[in-house]
Amino acid sequence: MKKLINAPDAVVADALRGVQAAHGDRVRVTFDPYCVVRADAPVQGKVGLISGGGSGHEPMHGGFVGPGMLDAACPGEVFTSPTPDQMLEATKAVNGGAGVVHVVKNYTGDVMNFDMAAEMGRGEEIEVETILTNDDVAVEDSLYTAGRRGVGVTVLVEKIAGAAAEAGRALSEVAEIGRRVNAQGRSMGMALTPCITPASGQPSFELAEDEVEIGIGIHGEPGRFREKAGPASQVAERLLTPIVEDLPFGSGDRVLAFVNGMGGTPLLELYIVYAEVAKIASDHGLTIERNLIGNYITSLEMQGCSITLVKLDDEMVRYWDAPVNTPALRWGA
Amino acid sequence: MKKLINAPDAVVADALRGVQAAHGDRVRVTFDPYCVVRADAPVQGKVGLISGGGSGHEPMHGGFVGPGMLDAACPGEVFTSPTPDQMLEATKAVNGGAGVVHVVKNYTGDVMNFDMAAEMGRGEEIEVETILTNDDVAVEDSLYTAGRRGVGVTVLVEKIAGAAAEAGRALSEVAEIGRRVNAQGRSMGMALTPCITPASGQPSFELAEDEVEIGIGIHGEPGRFREKAGPASQVAERLLTPIVEDLPFGSGDRVLAFVNGMGGTPLLELYIVYAEVAKIASDHGLTIERNLIGNYITSLEMQGCSITLVKLDDEMVRYWDAPVNTPALRWGA
Repeated sequence: MKKLINAPDAVVADALRGVQAAHGDRVRVTFDPYCVVRADAPVQGKVGLISGGGSGHEPMHGGFVGPGMLDAACPGEVFTSPTPDQMLEATKAVNGGAGVVHVVKNYTGDVMNFDMAAEMGRGEEIEVETILTNDDVAVEDSLYTAGRRGVGVTVLVEKIAGAAAEAGRALSEVAEIGRRVNAQGRSMGMALTPCITPASGQPSFELAEDEVEIGIGIHGEPGRFREKAGPASQVAERLLTPIVEDLPFGSGDRVLAFVNGMGGTPLLELYIVYAEVAKIASDHGLTIERNLIGNYITSLEMQGCSITLVKLDDEMVRYWDAPVNTPALRWGA
Repeated sequence: MKKLINAPDAVVADALRGVQAAHGDRVRVTFDPYCVVRADAPVQGKVGLISGGGSGHEPMHGGFVGPGMLDAACPGEVFTSPTPDQMLEATKAVNGGAGVVHVVKNYTGDVMNFDMAAEMGRGEEIEVETILTNDDVAVEDSLYTAGRRGVGVTVLVEKIAGAAAEAGRALSEVAEIGRRVNAQGRSMGMALTPCITPASGQPSFELAEDEVEIGIGIHGEPGRFREKAGPASQVAERLLTPIVEDLPFGSGDRVLAFVNGMGGTPLLELYIVYAEVAKIASDHGLTIERNLIGNYITSLEMQGCSITLVKLDDEMVRYWDAPVNTPALRWGA
C-alpha cells in the first residue's frame, strides 16, 4: 500500500488539519469530535443543513460546507459512520432557531446514528428533519445497507436544499425539496479497480485484469455483475439503462446529468463518459439542462465512475443555479 | 489496460465531444483542428490568451477556457504537442485587435510549434507575445525538455494573466505579469504509481511496490531519485526544500501554495500533504496568503502530487482573486 499519508490511524485528523489550514477563513474545524462548520454558523433565522458519513469520499461532505450548501459536516473514520455525539454537536453549532435538516445517506450505521442525534437534538429543543438519500438502483440491500444505497444524488440534494435554506425557506420546505430531489434522482456506479483502505492495507475486492464491476457501491460493496471491460459507450449504457427504466425517465423530461469519478479516474475519461451519456439521453428524448462532471463522491483511489440523473423542475433549477461558495463547489459568489 | 475510453485513437476527439456537450453554452469546440474557444471570442479590444499542450493533463488547458482565464486552448493527442496550425487557428479566433499571448510550457515540441505559430500570427498582422513557463526545479534538461520543465505554475500564470487581460491591460503588461508569476514560482512533483497512455497500453515507467519517484515529470519523465515510500511529511519535505532553496523563498515572503494531484490521488491525501506544506512553510517564515488544492495539471491516472509556491505581490493577489468562470476554476462570477 502506497499512499500520501503519515499513518493509517491519523488519516482523518491530518486531512482535517489540512482543511483548517487551507480554508480556515470560511470554515472552523473541531477535532473532538470531528466537525467542519461554516465559519459564520449559526446563521440566525436560517435553517441549518448538516450531513456526515465515513471519510474516504472527499470532497463529500466537508468540501461542501459554506454559504449556499452545508452548514456543517461530520466526518467519520474512513468508511465508518460518524457518531451521534458528532452529529449532535454539529446540529447545535448550526442551529439558528429555524431548525436543522440532516442529510443522511442510506447506510445502516449512518441512519441509526443520525436517528439518535435527531432525538438528542429534539431533546435540546431543536427541530430536526431528515432527508434520506437512497438513489442507487444497482441493488436492494447490500453489505452495509437495508434497501437502496445513498450515493450521487446526495451531492445534488445538498446543493439544492442548501440553496433553499440560504433563500430563507422554512424547515419543512427545505426538507421537502431535498426529498423531492432524491425521489426524482437515480444513480448507478462501476469500478475498474478496487480501493485500499488505510487501516486494512488490502484491496476492497479483486477484479481480473480485463474485468469491471457494474453496480459497485462507494465502499467497494458488490454490484450487479462483472464483465469483460468494454468501451465507454457500453459502460454508459450499462449504467444509464437501469437508471432510466427505474424512475422511469421519459421523453420530454428535463434532467440534471452528473458524471462522477470514483477518485482515481482521470477527468479526460469522465468527459468521454459524459459524451456517451449525452448521446443516450438524447436517444431517450431527455433534455440535459444542467450537468456536473468531476470527482465529488469518491471511494479513495478507486478507478471508475457513477452516473446520476435527476428529473428537474423550475424550482430545482433555480436553486441549482443559486450562488454557492464552498471549497469544492463554487459559483456566482 | 482498463480505461473509460472507446478506442485509444479516439480519446481526444471523444473527450472533446464531452466538453462540447457539457459546456457548449460557454465554449465552442472545433475538431479540425482541435480547439476549445471561449464562446464570445474574440472579445474586441481585449488581449487574447491561449495555451495548449498534449492531452492527458486535464483539466489543463481546456478546462481553463472562459472569462477571466484562457480565451482558447489547443489540445494535442495524449502527451503530444499540438501543431502550429492549431495554435494559429486559436490565435486568430481570439484576436480582438489588442494582440494575443501564448502561454507555453517548456517542452521542446510545444516551444517549437508555438514559435512557429507566433511567426505565422505575426504574418497575419496579429501581435503575439509568449510567456514560457519553466518552474520545475527537479531537473535541468529532461526527456522532452531543454532546461527546466513547465508544470504547476502554468495554471497560476493562466489565472493571473487571464485576469489582467480581462481587466483590459495591454499586451505587454499581460505578458509581463505572466512572466513575473513564472519567475517567482517554483514546483516539484512526485509519483507513487506510473500512468499508462492509451496508445502504448504500457506503464510509463516501473516502480517497486514500496518505492516512490521524487522529481517526476508530468509525462512520467524520470525525476531526481527513487526512495522507499515514506510518510506524507517526508514527501512534503522532499518537494518543498528544493523549491524554497531555489528561488530562494525567505522569511516574510507572502506566497500562494498549490498542492496539485497527478490525477489518481484522492483529495483526502492532497489535504494531508497540504497540512504538511502549511507547517513547513510556517517553519520557513512564509505566509501562505492564497492556496489551491486539487487535480489541475495531471498525468492521466498517475498517483502522486506536485507542490508549487509563488511569491506574491499585491497585483498578483488582486488578479488571483478576480472573478473566473471556467469549467474547472470558477469563483466570483
